[in-house]
This record gives sequence, C-alpha cells and structure tokens, in this order.
Amino acid sequence: MKKSVFYHAGCPVCISAEHDIVSLIGLENVEIIHLGNEKDKIEDAEKVGVISVPALVTPSGNVLHINFGASIEDVKN
Amino acid sequence: MKKSVFYHAGCPVCISAEHDIVSLIGLENVEIIHLGNEKDKIEDAEKVGVISVPALVTPSGNVLHINFGASIEDVKN
Repeated sequence: MKKSVFYHAGCPVCISAEHDIVSLIGLENVEIIHLGNEKDKIEDAEKVGVISVPALVTPSGNVLHINFGASIEDVKN
Repeated sequence: MKKSVFYHAGCPVCISAEHDIVSLIGLENVEIIHLGNEKDKIEDAEKVGVISVPALVTPSGNVLHINFGASIEDVKN
C-alpha cells in the first residue's frame, strides 16, 4: 500500500494526533513530515490541499484535516 | 485492540471520510455509528467529546474531528 503522509508542525494538537494516527494505522504506513522543520515541503503540502495541520493525506490523495493545530499560513512564519 | 468508533451523519464529507478511515484502519477495527439514524447515541457521542461529525474516537478515548461535515447540534434537528 502506498503510504499516507501526516503533516504537522510540532504543536500539542499535532503531537497528540500523530500518536493516535501512528497507533491506528501503523508507523510503517505513514510518512511524517514536520513542516516547521522542513519548510521546503510547505509548497508540496499546499499543492495537495493541506490548509491546516495536523493533516493526513491518504494514499488515494484525500486530505483529512484532523482537529486544528495551526493554519498553513501560520506555519510559514 | 479495542475498536475505534466513527461517528457520522450521512453528509458527503462524512461518507468520504468514512471510506478513507475504513481503508486506512480496516473495517474490523472500527464501529460506524450514523447519528442521523441512531439519535439515541448522540448523548454518548457528546459525553466522549464529539462536537462535530465526522469524528473518530480512538481506543484510547481521544476524539479526532476529521474535516467538518456538521455540528453535533445540527445532527439533533
């Protein structure tokens, strides 16, 4: 199975959701990207439709925005 | 593993998220509750912290609000 991608920015809401997602779908099935540390990937995230973090992009390309930690605009700063 | 519970209300956002969640974590790991059809379960959902649907309650009791379909108040009507 193609991996899901979990985008976050280190916020408490993000970390909590990350633990839940990893526990539910397995660490081997998800690539975790910290947009605060990898700012060059913010553009990729926006292109696939991520508007806030934490967000999970499924193998089929759907974006699941999970709870609300920060907007993608906030992550740019 | 204790099952997760996915609460939804039949809205398009809910159905889309349901497909994604079932695909990611497996139908055998999630109980699906349609609050529009099972209104007696709305109180349970509120008690565990569901404020909008679709929402996934993890085995550890965390509530992941996924995208936004409808508020729990809207589901009551």
